[in-house]
Amino acid sequence: MNPINERIFQLRTTMRELDLDAVILPSNDPHQSEYVNDYWKIRTYFSGFTGSAGTVVVTHEIAALWTDSRYFLQVETQTHESEVVLFKQSIPHAPEHMPWLADVLEENSKIGVDYRLFSKDQIEGLEQLNLTKKHTIVDLKDALFAVWMDHPNGPTGDIYLHDIQFAGENARSKIEKVREEIAFCTADFFFLSSLDEIAWLFNLRSSDVDFNPLATAYALVGKTRIILFLDHSRLTVEANMALNKENIEILPYQAVFSELEILTNQKKVIADPKTLNYACFLCFKGENVLKPSIVQQLKTLKNTVEIAQAKNSMLKDGVALTKFFMWLERELELREISEFEIGRKLEAFRKEQAYYVQESFAAIVGYKGNGAIIHYTAPEFNSSMVTNEGILLVDSGAQYLGGTTDITRTVWLGGVPKENLKKNYTLVLKGFIELSTIKFPEKSLGIQLDVLARMHLWKNGLDYSHGTGHGIGSFGMVHEPNQGFAPTMVTSRGSASHFANQLTTIEPGYYKEGEFGIRIENVVLSKNAKLPGHFLEFEPITVFPIDTTLISRQLLEEHEIGWLNSYHETVYETISPTLTGPERNWLREKCKAI
Amino acid sequence: MNPINERIFQLRTTMRELDLDAVILPSNDPHQSEYVNDYWKIRTYFSGFTGSAGTVVVTHEIAALWTDSRYFLQVETQTHESEVVLFKQSIPHAPEHMPWLADVLEENSKIGVDYRLFSKDQIEGLEQLNLTKKHTIVDLKDALFAVWMDHPNGPTGDIYLHDIQFAGENARSKIEKVREEIAFCTADFFFLSSLDEIAWLFNLRSSDVDFNPLATAYALVGKTRIILFLDHSRLTVEANMALNKENIEILPYQAVFSELEILTNQKKVIADPKTLNYACFLCFKGENVLKPSIVQQLKTLKNTVEIAQAKNSMLKDGVALTKFFMWLERELELREISEFEIGRKLEAFRKEQAYYVQESFAAIVGYKGNGAIIHYTAPEFNSSMVTNEGILLVDSGAQYLGGTTDITRTVWLGGVPKENLKKNYTLVLKGFIELSTIKFPEKSLGIQLDVLARMHLWKNGLDYSHGTGHGIGSFGMVHEPNQGFAPTMVTSRGSASHFANQLTTIEPGYYKEGEFGIRIENVVLSKNAKLPGHFLEFEPITVFPIDTTLISRQLLEEHEIGWLNSYHETVYETISPTLTGPERNWLREKCKAI
Repeated sequence: MNPINERIFQLRTTMRELDLDAVILPSNDPHQSEYVNDYWKIRTYFSGFTGSAGTVVVTHEIAALWTDSRYFLQVETQTHESEVVLFKQSIPHAPEHMPWLADVLEENSKIGVDYRLFSKDQIEGLEQLNLTKKHTIVDLKDALFAVWMDHPNGPTGDIYLHDIQFAGENARSKIEKVREEIAFCTADFFFLSSLDEIAWLFNLRSSDVDFNPLATAYALVGKTRIILFLDHSRLTVEANMALNKENIEILPYQAVFSELEILTNQKKVIADPKTLNYACFLCFKGENVLKPSIVQQLKTLKNTVEIAQAKNSMLKDGVALTKFFMWLERELELREISEFEIGRKLEAFRKEQAYYVQESFAAIVGYKGNGAIIHYTAPEFNSSMVTNEGILLVDSGAQYLGGTTDITRTVWLGGVPKENLKKNYTLVLKGFIELSTIKFPEKSLGIQLDVLARMHLWKNGLDYSHGTGHGIGSFGMVHEPNQGFAPTMVTSRGSASHFANQLTTIEPGYYKEGEFGIRIENVVLSKNAKLPGHFLEFEPITVFPIDTTLISRQLLEEHEIGWLNSYHETVYETISPTLTGPERNWLREKCKAI
Repeated sequence: MNPINERIFQLRTTMRELDLDAVILPSNDPHQSEYVNDYWKIRTYFSGFTGSAGTVVVTHEIAALWTDSRYFLQVETQTHESEVVLFKQSIPHAPEHMPWLADVLEENSKIGVDYRLFSKDQIEGLEQLNLTKKHTIVDLKDALFAVWMDHPNGPTGDIYLHDIQFAGENARSKIEKVREEIAFCTADFFFLSSLDEIAWLFNLRSSDVDFNPLATAYALVGKTRIILFLDHSRLTVEANMALNKENIEILPYQAVFSELEILTNQKKVIADPKTLNYACFLCFKGENVLKPSIVQQLKTLKNTVEIAQAKNSMLKDGVALTKFFMWLERELELREISEFEIGRKLEAFRKEQAYYVQESFAAIVGYKGNGAIIHYTAPEFNSSMVTNEGILLVDSGAQYLGGTTDITRTVWLGGVPKENLKKNYTLVLKGFIELSTIKFPEKSLGIQLDVLARMHLWKNGLDYSHGTGHGIGSFGMVHEPNQGFAPTMVTSRGSASHFANQLTTIEPGYYKEGEFGIRIENVVLSKNAKLPGHFLEFEPITVFPIDTTLISRQLLEEHEIGWLNSYHETVYETISPTLTGPERNWLREKCKAI
């Protein structure tokens, strides 16, 4: 029997034992993380599908996989020998399997889910959808994992201190702020399950998931006690001492459920319903205050050390990218190079920089039509060969101990660009400059500012189908779930307010399927504008030139040209001292005024 | 005894009879109308305060009035001899009296309100606020009006047909669309209480309230029966015949409560919770579908006749304004004129136009510092004297049978304007042009587009504290409660989507307290842009020149100058054929290219 079918067979045996009609297997971990440790990849185990987004539903009749267009080809390769059937999702991450499931099941069916892998909001969404046919949602607890043969161990890497020279604020000071929130809500505890929030609050880092330097843990902050639920043996000596010094208790990660039941008995607990998993929620035995986490709010306001470190990390990125693009230009004169190799070479240049840890996401190196695939990753084998002509989009970032970077540049590799391509590139650039140069009242929402990046495209009947920017962490997550720019209130990128001292990306684009992708992305620091009143402005802290080959100069206003030339002057002044003579010359040419 | 104190004394007698601890007197009528017929002005009767916004709370100890800063002086004049005490509201229309009342009353107090004068949402808000102290909300029914000596009769004017030559669609066709909504919701009835919606649906008009040509009525549309609750005797013969022909039943206005109880028994009724009053809501005896009214959605999409008539009405406004501003210029050379007289003269010029009915709101004529008072109305006596120097803001509109107008122009009357004033005027104009010239995807929200009118002010640390525009009716309400532009999602002006064939105002401003107010306002028609995809654009249909004296030409981009000159060309071409020779010359001068 095909190994996946065999796993599904075993799952159905368990379903029969538990009297279940369906099981839902999501991509999540118990912390609603963007990237998930192998330990939790239950959906991959039972379907063979390794993509980052997707949901599998297994009934006694069918094993169905929902995922979006990014993964259709991959699903075909990974499931064509198993019984897994692809259901094409029209909106990524939307729960399109739910109406289907509600419909396909008989009345009064029982649906099994692992409560740890669903947020409180998600379970309530499930229950809502099942109202008409009276289905029951049942907690599987560990049953799925009991079926999993050779279940990988959880993460084992060191959990280490994020040094104060990078963090700029110690855990004690941060915890005090959480305690102010506890006092404000007249609560007893603040419960954290987001790995990102825990990493920030306790100045801890690890390597439990791809790209984000986070440790698997829960945390319960009380008025007197502070408890971290994590694998004690993974703490470095230094981290252990630091936690000890603050009287932070360490309990086993798996103990969180039983301990919560005891500790929260008749107590008032604050938690964020967006990240709180349903299994933890059910362990709360007193009053709950479910609200957006104050830690996300605190974390998004970078302190002066974090800002200085972020700028320093951007400088290193600028140096690495200078070496990389210079290499690329020279090498393409000699040979063609695969997108995949280009990505690896970029990583290699970044690795040379001090305090480099890892990539902050899977680099996107998209040549010509591949640049139009928004979440493109060049495959290791048979990725497109890049030559010294045409357009290349490179979106990449790094984790340095001091900060997280994210930069996109679209460059012209040679030949004569079509006028229409230059026009599109210039329209994207105009929006990029428009948003980069706005001054705006403090607390403006992302949805208000987003249009500035689109208005010039719109005037030409063009648009792009992604948000315009996201918050970014300090040696944390490249996508921070807070402020940003988006044309919708559905995500916090549109609905959250902007404040001074936030780091956010600005990344408008334009994509023509099968032909090209254009995107230009900087990280900007929001700060008080030199104006009366509470106005903010953005300072670009990414330092690398924007390709001027593709610009239609006559489409730019004088002030836009002035901004671009001044930005390039800053780029040159910032990174040239760190470069060799030839690199400096190369950069001088790229930064010359238009 | 002071007459107001006497009324409050009588009210308290009634309160004792009904065992009430407090009574809340709002400014509303049972239809949540913007303007209210004298019949419903219970708050004014018991407080003497005649302003449009405010709430009175009477307890056995105090009679307290909440209103906002617009009315502080007026309150002083109108209440200084009575026991009414002013509580200054910081946010207009906010229920700031509620926390106060909840606090000042003993536990288990009884608060009387007339359920007709509160929407369902408002009553539920009250109940929410009273939870902690267990107050009870009690329906006063007619008790307040029983105390009211010499209570004015309700409106008595003719209720007449809005002719098909203006409406462009007959009632039958509109009612069919409402029945589609009934079918879609698998409901039995659609209940309407908004006077504006009823006027649109049945093509009826009257004069029951100031400025809006509406008739007092409720309506119940069913799958077979259609019932209008209104004063039958007020229908013109023509209107009566038209309603008869469509088998529309007429029942007395006051019968709505008892009839609803019978008709909705075990039936499913659709209603809009924003306008549905609580007394009607309690009469629904079956299932309810409470959702935003489809009629608002239908009404906001103007048909071709309404659009043509709107343009025709704008033309008449342009002619009247030409005569008016020409008169003003000439007259100011001879004498100074009060703001009040200027407003009356403007009305007189509009009255000369065919199909003129009335002003669409109280004209704002604000000289110098008065222009900075956003809801300014020049008082009949002792309003400021305007001379031939300085700045004047005129915001006014008319109801013609064919359409509703609303236009603001800020003009320079003579002398040398300061550079800073010119800069501010030009920044407002830049935002006005930016929003007027955008092309945008269909369904974009008001909050997304709003920033375009503010961005140039923002870049200079300036802003204005009102929304940027509102929907406007077709011989209906000047403020239609649907699409618009606002920097917040709290009102539909920010949160509603834009579609083709809507009429909306664009009216950015800038105000310097005590010195000047600047506002420029056009009505624009949204229509499909000549672009691929679903992009919309705005066509300005207001036709009157924008004062160029106050422009700092060097602050304008070429495309902005181009837009302004082209707009002025259109203005001249549109209205000059209707003018006398001298008027044409005057207009030619005002429309000359900069």
